[in-house]
Amino acid sequence: MRARTIRELASLVGGEVDGDGSLEISGVSGLEAAQPGQLSFYGNQRYKAQLAATKASAVLVADGAPPRGSRTHVRVTNPHLAFARVAQVFHPKKAHPPGRSTEASIHPEAQVDATATVMAHAYVGKGATVAARAVLYPGAYVGDGARVGEDTVLSPNAAVMDRCVVGARCLLHAGAVIGADGFGFALDLSVPEHVKIPQAGIARVEDDVEVGACSCVDRATTGETVIGKGTKIDNLVQVGHNSVVGPLSILCAQAGLSGTTTLGQGVVLAGQVGVAGHLRIGDLAKVGAQAGVMHDVADGATVLGAPAMPHKDFLRAAAVFARLPELSKELRELKKRLEALEKERT
Amino acid sequence: MRARTIRELASLVGGEVDGDGSLEISGVSGLEAAQPGQLSFYGNQRYKAQLAATKASAVLVADGAPPRGSRTHVRVTNPHLAFARVAQVFHPKKAHPPGRSTEASIHPEAQVDATATVMAHAYVGKGATVAARAVLYPGAYVGDGARVGEDTVLSPNAAVMDRCVVGARCLLHAGAVIGADGFGFALDLSVPEHVKIPQAGIARVEDDVEVGACSCVDRATTGETVIGKGTKIDNLVQVGHNSVVGPLSILCAQAGLSGTTTLGQGVVLAGQVGVAGHLRIGDLAKVGAQAGVMHDVADGATVLGAPAMPHKDFLRAAAVFARLPELSKELRELKKRLEALEKERT
Amino acid sequence: MRARTIRELASLVGGEVDGDGSLEISGVSGLEAAQPGQLSFYGNQRYKAQLAATKASAVLVADGAPPRGSRTHVRVTNPHLAFARVAQVFHPKKAHPPGRSTEASIHPEAQVDATATVMAHAYVGKGATVAARAVLYPGAYVGDGARVGEDTVLSPNAAVMDRCVVGARCLLHAGAVIGADGFGFALDLSVPEHVKIPQAGIARVEDDVEVGACSCVDRATTGETVIGKGTKIDNLVQVGHNSVVGPLSILCAQAGLSGTTTLGQGVVLAGQVGVAGHLRIGDLAKVGAQAGVMHDVADGATVLGAPAMPHKDFLRAAAVFARLPELSKELRELKKRLEALEKERT
Repeated sequence: MRARTIRELASLVGGEVDGDGSLEISGVSGLEAAQPGQLSFYGNQRYKAQLAATKASAVLVADGAPPRGSRTHVRVTNPHLAFARVAQVFHPKKAHPPGRSTEASIHPEAQVDATATVMAHAYVGKGATVAARAVLYPGAYVGDGARVGEDTVLSPNAAVMDRCVVGARCLLHAGAVIGADGFGFALDLSVPEHVKIPQAGIARVEDDVEVGACSCVDRATTGETVIGKGTKIDNLVQVGHNSVVGPLSILCAQAGLSGTTTLGQGVVLAGQVGVAGHLRIGDLAKVGAQAGVMHDVADGATVLGAPAMPHKDFLRAAAVFARLPELSKELRELKKRLEALEKERT
Repeated sequence: MRARTIRELASLVGGEVDGDGSLEISGVSGLEAAQPGQLSFYGNQRYKAQLAATKASAVLVADGAPPRGSRTHVRVTNPHLAFARVAQVFHPKKAHPPGRSTEASIHPEAQVDATATVMAHAYVGKGATVAARAVLYPGAYVGDGARVGEDTVLSPNAAVMDRCVVGARCLLHAGAVIGADGFGFALDLSVPEHVKIPQAGIARVEDDVEVGACSCVDRATTGETVIGKGTKIDNLVQVGHNSVVGPLSILCAQAGLSGTTTLGQGVVLAGQVGVAGHLRIGDLAKVGAQAGVMHDVADGATVLGAPAMPHKDFLRAAAVFARLPELSKELRELKKRLEALEKERT
Repeated sequence: MRARTIRELASLVGGEVDGDGSLEISGVSGLEAAQPGQLSFYGNQRYKAQLAATKASAVLVADGAPPRGSRTHVRVTNPHLAFARVAQVFHPKKAHPPGRSTEASIHPEAQVDATATVMAHAYVGKGATVAARAVLYPGAYVGDGARVGEDTVLSPNAAVMDRCVVGARCLLHAGAVIGADGFGFALDLSVPEHVKIPQAGIARVEDDVEVGACSCVDRATTGETVIGKGTKIDNLVQVGHNSVVGPLSILCAQAGLSGTTTLGQGVVLAGQVGVAGHLRIGDLAKVGAQAGVMHDVADGATVLGAPAMPHKDFLRAAAVFARLPELSKELRELKKRLEALEKERT
């Protein structure tokens, strides 16, 4: 990757150079790991010491950052975001030569765009479509009638099951599964057996979605399970059948959604969160790590705990929880002292 | 799929027609999504409004349902179960042409039934057997000496490791792993190193079991890890080595069993439950979502919380938990008032 | 496997024979399952009854074990460890004939040692190296520039992504993913979109590591995510980007590490533990099942609960938690009685 001047990079992110705009930058890194010739960013006062000590030649900063000293600063509104944009310049997406490996298996009735890349041991089923510039890594599976959008990447062993739809510019990481059967059974006690309810719907992943390694988005019983445009899903996440995840949401690792739950837009589920079925999590709601959500969550609310409650209430209650043995002891003592008083009185 | 008359469908599920038995039904759907020509079901008073508003031509109902109005009802004992049976009529299992893809890899000493389907990039090891009408999707793996029963389906990239056994009519979803090594090590401080305890046993999955996407059933150290007949396992579930899951159990997504734990029959583990090792969970026990089970659970018990306790006890305690800061404050006040009284007395 | 005399086996583990050293042993098993001709071990007084009843011909025991009766004992310092060593004798690692399947896909610029085994449908990318005696099972994926060390095994559908490094004698179970992108985005509200922060670093797995089925070790944003030498990771575990797991640690099933968290050496995370980002878990620290770690943990500490606290504190507090409704009631009663006293006084 060729070097860029600070001036070029500042212009890219709409920033203002404070220092030497002709400096050549050859890469990006965090404050601690950065080397001379690299650009870093400072987005949080917590890292003041690291800012002072960094070897980076230049740093993206917001208003209110410490004075730059001899280092070059680029002032931007959002240093983290500007860093992301600059990092993409130095680390562009991997290019893949278009074409089909002779070791891939593509059904004669599938439609694979000539600009798509289909690597060895990938599989495309009957009636499936793979759009322009899509990439299927080894072991990727596109089921019968499934659709993979433009520029979408299926990493090794990622699977899009029959008739499911993945939009454009999506990234499915290794082992991700889109459209496994929803988990639905009806108990027949007379046999006894759990009778399978056919999962006849699909899973639909909209544009610009990322689905983490070994994450699962189940197909709907009827209709669709939906992952909204621009939502990002981390590894080992479960999205149950008929759930609808709004656009621009963030689902961190090992979070799980039961069936028929709706997330608004811009929702954040932290790691290992569990959400019960048939709920609505409002727009911009935040659910803290390991929370267990049993009831609807209002727009903009931040909840925590299991069962989940307003974030601050949980923190206050949790602080008392740790003192429970002490409280219990105090209560016993008060009781004794009260009994003593009561006795005296008689 | 051809249409069926209400009369045919009612007969299939042992129901009684209340209305027009000659109506033609072409599919099934939930109350809200149903269209004219479709059959739906009403199994819970919560959905009374949806029943009133549905466009379905006919609805499966139980005794005590509201009067049918102009719509046709089919009275059955268990509407949900009847719905499952009817849905199977309209959504039969996908048929697979028997035969082996030339792109599959089958060991010459494997026994694959002529009616089985082995798709491209599937693998069958030495001495393995694949029974009649079994289906191996692309990337499915059947290890040396492993056995896959009749009509069992291995979805893309599902793996049955060496010598493990999967019964008849099972469905392993994409990425499911049967028989990875149990997690067993002995610490040798003198090196230091964690010395691997060979996992020489197997995992055995009995008939009619479903294992979700990316779920793992580990092989036993010696002997067998067992998933009992008719048990259904959701996605991302972990079953540790030497555990025995009784028949007809339900393990919801992201639940985890440590090693050497026994589940009775008809046990339900809700999502993200964790169960410690060397325990017994009794027949028909229910463990609520995210519970952490540290002790045996009695037959028929319902537990919740971490550590798990009787369900009602947990709900009561959790209700007080949210009020802990308030309780703590009250306690401090009582103490002051008591001290005041005590002072007066002296 | 040929039989061995007790004398041979005792010598192997540095033990002392108490009984018949010429006995022939043909295998190992737990106390309950053991048959005549087998060796078992007794490492915990909990299993005294099983020791008395075992059919094993000989048992590995520590000092202080009950007298041997007619059975042969082998006295060792650590019976569990000795059992592991003996079990490895009877269950050696599976041997694989070296060579490349014609159905594997190996880039012409990859370097695969002649003694390595590359099975059907495995893939090795451009510039990747696969060292001596390594084994790639069907569906295993080694990305461009990735490195797989000597004697390391990639089970079916395990993936080592571009440029990542796996050391010697490692075992990646089925579906394990080393080096999927870390989960990093910056929100651009002006679009709005989550802008991907390129994950330009790698994941590095040191020697003698085991990674469980469907477990994920994400690549770093810049620099390295590291799994230290001799660490063992169970199934469905998530290790976030830029985390560093010290040597000889144990991560049990479904545990999750957020990003940029450091584990010392010999750390144990029990099942379903969650650890927040940017923390340090000290050497030899133990984190109990389902704990949620929000703060640094000191060397040697044992913590439990969510938020995590010292293990004993949690157990004490949890014991009171179950009695909260009772405490709340007592508090109300005390209040009434106090009010009564206060009234009398006036």
